[in-house]
Amino acid sequence: MSLLKVIPLGGAGEIGKNCTVVEMGDDLIVIDCGLSFPHEEHFGVDIVVPNFDYLRDNKDRLKAVVITHAHEDHVGALSFFVSEFDCPIYCTPFTEAMVRAKLEERVKLLEVPLKRMTIGKKFDIGAFEIEPIRLTHSIPEMCAIAVHTSHGVVMFTGDFKFDFSPVDHQPSDIKRLTQLGEDGVLVLLSDSTNVDRPGWGPSESAVAEGYRREFSKAKGRIMVTMFSSNIHRMQQVFDVAKEVGRRVAVAGRRMDDTVRMCQRLGYLNIPENVYLPLEELNKRAAHEVIILVTGSQGEPMAALSQMSRKEYSRLQIVEGDTILYSARPIPGNEGMIWRTVNRLIRLGASVVTDAPTPIHVSGHGYQDELKMMVQLTKPFYLAPVHGEPRHQLLYLDMAKSMGHPEHRMFHLHNGSQLCFDDQKAWIDDKPVKWGEVLIDQHGNVPVTDAVLGQRAALAMDGVIVVSLAADLKAGALEGRPEAQIKGFSGPGETIEDALDALCDELAKLKPAELKSRDFLEGVIVDIVKRVVQRKCQQRPVVIPVVVAV
Amino acid sequence: MSLLKVIPLGGAGEIGKNCTVVEMGDDLIVIDCGLSFPHEEHFGVDIVVPNFDYLRDNKDRLKAVVITHAHEDHVGALSFFVSEFDCPIYCTPFTEAMVRAKLEERVKLLEVPLKRMTIGKKFDIGAFEIEPIRLTHSIPEMCAIAVHTSHGVVMFTGDFKFDFSPVDHQPSDIKRLTQLGEDGVLVLLSDSTNVDRPGWGPSESAVAEGYRREFSKAKGRIMVTMFSSNIHRMQQVFDVAKEVGRRVAVAGRRMDDTVRMCQRLGYLNIPENVYLPLEELNKRAAHEVIILVTGSQGEPMAALSQMSRKEYSRLQIVEGDTILYSARPIPGNEGMIWRTVNRLIRLGASVVTDAPTPIHVSGHGYQDELKMMVQLTKPFYLAPVHGEPRHQLLYLDMAKSMGHPEHRMFHLHNGSQLCFDDQKAWIDDKPVKWGEVLIDQHGNVPVTDAVLGQRAALAMDGVIVVSLAADLKAGALEGRPEAQIKGFSGPGETIEDALDALCDELAKLKPAELKSRDFLEGVIVDIVKRVVQRKCQQRPVVIPVVVAV
Repeated sequence: MSLLKVIPLGGAGEIGKNCTVVEMGDDLIVIDCGLSFPHEEHFGVDIVVPNFDYLRDNKDRLKAVVITHAHEDHVGALSFFVSEFDCPIYCTPFTEAMVRAKLEERVKLLEVPLKRMTIGKKFDIGAFEIEPIRLTHSIPEMCAIAVHTSHGVVMFTGDFKFDFSPVDHQPSDIKRLTQLGEDGVLVLLSDSTNVDRPGWGPSESAVAEGYRREFSKAKGRIMVTMFSSNIHRMQQVFDVAKEVGRRVAVAGRRMDDTVRMCQRLGYLNIPENVYLPLEELNKRAAHEVIILVTGSQGEPMAALSQMSRKEYSRLQIVEGDTILYSARPIPGNEGMIWRTVNRLIRLGASVVTDAPTPIHVSGHGYQDELKMMVQLTKPFYLAPVHGEPRHQLLYLDMAKSMGHPEHRMFHLHNGSQLCFDDQKAWIDDKPVKWGEVLIDQHGNVPVTDAVLGQRAALAMDGVIVVSLAADLKAGALEGRPEAQIKGFSGPGETIEDALDALCDELAKLKPAELKSRDFLEGVIVDIVKRVVQRKCQQRPVVIPVVVAV
Repeated sequence: MSLLKVIPLGGAGEIGKNCTVVEMGDDLIVIDCGLSFPHEEHFGVDIVVPNFDYLRDNKDRLKAVVITHAHEDHVGALSFFVSEFDCPIYCTPFTEAMVRAKLEERVKLLEVPLKRMTIGKKFDIGAFEIEPIRLTHSIPEMCAIAVHTSHGVVMFTGDFKFDFSPVDHQPSDIKRLTQLGEDGVLVLLSDSTNVDRPGWGPSESAVAEGYRREFSKAKGRIMVTMFSSNIHRMQQVFDVAKEVGRRVAVAGRRMDDTVRMCQRLGYLNIPENVYLPLEELNKRAAHEVIILVTGSQGEPMAALSQMSRKEYSRLQIVEGDTILYSARPIPGNEGMIWRTVNRLIRLGASVVTDAPTPIHVSGHGYQDELKMMVQLTKPFYLAPVHGEPRHQLLYLDMAKSMGHPEHRMFHLHNGSQLCFDDQKAWIDDKPVKWGEVLIDQHGNVPVTDAVLGQRAALAMDGVIVVSLAADLKAGALEGRPEAQIKGFSGPGETIEDALDALCDELAKLKPAELKSRDFLEGVIVDIVKRVVQRKCQQRPVVIPVVVAV
């Protein structure tokens, strides 16, 4: 019997760009196809997607993509995937609608091979039988995916919590998880994001109580910021708005699009006379309105961030506004978020980031929920994913404390080949090719490491362009070299000193050397870099321009 | 009688670069002279210091600087201050030693006018009487400063907590605070950093118990990272190391310098046979050593960060190492810290960032401690500083809840002139000039907003240099324009398209236009920018080079 392999191309050892291969014989499927967000050293990069080289090398075996849910870290790389691969992409109706909207926006592609799957209904892809199982999370129709194979069941939890009072009244399918556990699960690839939080997380529906308290305290306008995919939380804003007699407007294009779509498809149930078009905001008194706004992560171009800088033409912060942050910072965004908060406060708003009754809860299960998943599904092997290395290690510690034998657990990295034959499981010595592709969304072009290195150097100390006219045939220079600077902060005389030194050096060159453009360019870069570094310890990029006359 | 004015030039509405003017008649003093750290949009900036224009304009009245304690956000701008102003700088012996070490490193200035003050001893500066009062904090010899004036006492708390078991057995001088309260304090400028934490913070000495637990669990080497000024915490590492039979080495130049200096001056009491020179580390077994390392904030050049990238030649991470983070992330540093932590884990280390028994406590008092300061000193006016606007607002709410009348509290911004006559206090309509000066430590040069904007553009989309040879006298071009790129990621054909468009445009120019270098440069920038933006929505910096032949 062929080997069964599970290979994360993203999402193992990180929170982001989830994308895992399951393959056996001639069949290869991909679970999720997500993006991650750049960090502060990723200059000019908008999103990060997995390197698909392994899929390129195995294009003939690639049968399908199966999506667990519509969060960007699970679907955000599809726009790159579909421009290159044409296999079907299976998702639930809600996920399909969200993905379609994004694909239309990003690749203007109307003919994407999206295929509908139904939660609870198994279907075949080659030798695999795929079973989507409902779990609760912070977005509708989140599915665990059980991949039934001749070696056993490979179970992807996706992102989950055990929420017993979900806003959409669609609880996790605990019965089916139990049955799978009874029948036998070969390996569980579990969410491990919140393994460092002991106990059990609060239900999403707890947020309504937080809203009730904060909405009733506010005297002026209320703005609520959250992720634009958090439909259940929006539902609670609309519901509590109705209770307290306010109307809800939406600011921010993506959030507005999502609200409209979800209402149309029945995922959002807006009570009558609660929705308020943004342009009618000024017809209402301050105490009659709530505004949903984008920008919970301090994203510079989001509505709330623009308002904080007085750059959002459709809506201005006024004294007495109350702004509720109904989202947790993604680590690394704290600086941007607090700078936005402080600007909002300076404009006279009161800002609530942390309320005594929570206005944010996590979509990921805490440690006891992760334990419950293990106890229900009783996997033979365990491999935590959807976590940084520190989360994966804590998860394995947790599993040990539950008595799970150490030789039946794996710490996966991206590229790890987790292999199964009919006897055992192991990680192959050699990882497959994996990596991160940095995307500049303007033009959808990848940013190479070389370009990133150049941007880092430019950002640090700027650029000096040194031009020189030379008669390359005769081996003679024409005039003195000139310099232009951008982003360089060294003392003014540095450049003059560098040009003087360059002139001295050029004067020493032999005619043969003066005939070589490459040689001249090399001299310019060497001398200017050396003088600048000696004078002011800076390392600007030096670009030589030798113009042949 | 002259007006008394209190004017923060830094530190009001921010956590960082504390620097406040107190002036009356011909006398002007400055309390603290600190720096702050750059955020991710401050490309190539190492530190941020206050704009001293107000001091320049009032140089003749400037009598002295008085320093509360030796943290960088209170003393880090002194190296810039002393190169321009020559008034005395008063500090306690410990602060003097720390400041002197930094000044020698930064400005190679041995003759700095540092003057010794003694805690508890009043001294005169012009019309002011200065009284340093001992408070507890995370560094030795932290002083509140009471400035006695003919209008009353202006009380700066500095950074404080009420620690009843301080590591150096030097508690806060509560008796003197009480007396001041009885005699009458005009205005209290209080630390407000931890006003959002209810209750009372743990003592610094609680960390020893955390160390005991973590040190006894670790089987291999232990590394402890913390701020290099945290002498009390280092003391506890040395003490607990002695208890558990380990020796302590120090990695990281600044930390090593500080340890030696503090031991020499008696601020650090290293038990016999506990200090281990770093070069002798390999003579000891793993379970016999502890290493103090710099890098708790993920600073790229610190020892721990270099180790995580395998770039630190003196020490390599090995399987079984335990690394304790004995410091809290400064907001904004989380991304860098977690990336370092994950790299350390991948190298086989176990990393403890959060222990059940704390290995870090804050140096700033929690809400009840802030309340106690108000109750002891009974100030007539209140003005929270050392906090972002959100902290200042929470502090004012707290004061209201204590019954402090609202018209006797002030929300200060940098530049605010808080004025007192013998009747009342008010904030002047017109703030004084203030600002942040961004410093590139290489060459100690300020980075202007213009340079920063250029760096941001370069970092985002790179640079295109377009060169053109022209006979400006004849008004004729020589050959085709050429382009070089750095950090530009647009599709390859973009540049060719831009040059084609540029050639077309140049062909249309009149001879008079071809004689103007400025005009030609303008055409190059316009056309190249326009084509690039149309083709790939990017906005690189375009540098035109017109070489006259």
